[in-house]
Amino acid sequence: MSKKIITIGRQCGSGGHTIGKTLSERLGIPFYDKEIIELAAKESGFSEDFIAENGEHTNDSLLHKLLKNLSYSSNIKSDVYSSLQDEIYFCQAKIIRELGESGPCVIVSRCADSILEEHSDVLNVFIHANTDFRVQRCVERAETSKNEAQLYIATKDKRRANHYKYYTEKEWGHSSNYHLCLDSGMLGIEKCVSIIEDIYLEKR
Amino acid sequence: MSKKIITIGRQCGSGGHTIGKTLSERLGIPFYDKEIIELAAKESGFSEDFIAENGEHTNDSLLHKLLKNLSYSSNIKSDVYSSLQDEIYFCQAKIIRELGESGPCVIVSRCADSILEEHSDVLNVFIHANTDFRVQRCVERAETSKNEAQLYIATKDKRRANHYKYYTEKEWGHSSNYHLCLDSGMLGIEKCVSIIEDIYLEKR
Repeated sequence: MSKKIITIGRQCGSGGHTIGKTLSERLGIPFYDKEIIELAAKESGFSEDFIAENGEHTNDSLLHKLLKNLSYSSNIKSDVYSSLQDEIYFCQAKIIRELGESGPCVIVSRCADSILEEHSDVLNVFIHANTDFRVQRCVERAETSKNEAQLYIATKDKRRANHYKYYTEKEWGHSSNYHLCLDSGMLGIEKCVSIIEDIYLEKR
Repeated sequence: MSKKIITIGRQCGSGGHTIGKTLSERLGIPFYDKEIIELAAKESGFSEDFIAENGEHTNDSLLHKLLKNLSYSSNIKSDVYSSLQDEIYFCQAKIIRELGESGPCVIVSRCADSILEEHSDVLNVFIHANTDFRVQRCVERAETSKNEAQLYIATKDKRRANHYKYYTEKEWGHSSNYHLCLDSGMLGIEKCVSIIEDIYLEKR
């Protein structure tokens, strides 16, 4: 069986999850987004909530910053918070590598493009859109206010970018990390799906 | 007549010029790459060679750096070299805006995506590929050595990135600046052309 994996990085609210899910249904291959959290929870013993909170974010809370400064100033090398995040990252990375070996699938984010970079048969995609489009989608889907959606999107994307940079040393959303970057606001969700599907089937 | 412009940013050696040229032939619309240099030479009075050298680059020569430092240390406000580059930039920007008003066309780089950002009917594309693919294309096309091609590509792209950053305050090659970013090394030149053509005709 040919191995063929699609990884999808995405800005919050851009429709990356929907695009990945639709692709998996059309192509008849498994889809992994929050499913990776469930697998990582079983593997690591952490709760799903804890993994969801820390699995795509580096911790930039005030408490974490204070602990980090304290560990620097007192020359303490261990950092409990970073260690837990590292543990989650390496657990998810192990799962993603195993998924990559098990056959065709769609994997949403969690640095999957970088984790599978030695894999010869991966299509790395990044989905983005302008803020208005993403806020509008969040407002419609989460029934939240426009201001709340703006804040949620900005915070989420900042944390994802930091997490990606921290573990891959590359810049989140830069075209050089992906084979294909699509503006879902301009192209539309359906067109993004059909472009990726077409490339996937042609290269198969 | 509907206005519809394709702008193409590209890494050196990625095939962006070829992709743009092929698109213009298939779509039957004008193509502007070095043609902008000719237009800018007529408009500004600078020679085509001078515009080619400075139209996509900020000047990072030793002489320029020394002059810049001299002007800082001696509190001289004018900077002859930067002024000439600004003059070329604004001349090319004026030409690009006029082209944007005159009808459908393909424009290669020179910050055209940013210059036309208020234009409602523009498709902004960025073409990139891994270094091996680009070096190989340069070696084949320019009959140069691999080492020379590597140096040429690295220098050219660094200067293009600096120039783009200087005039747009955005990062060259970051997906957020384009509707579509394509890896021509992975997808192939022909596939890049057909993806862009398909989007252009669908949105027309």
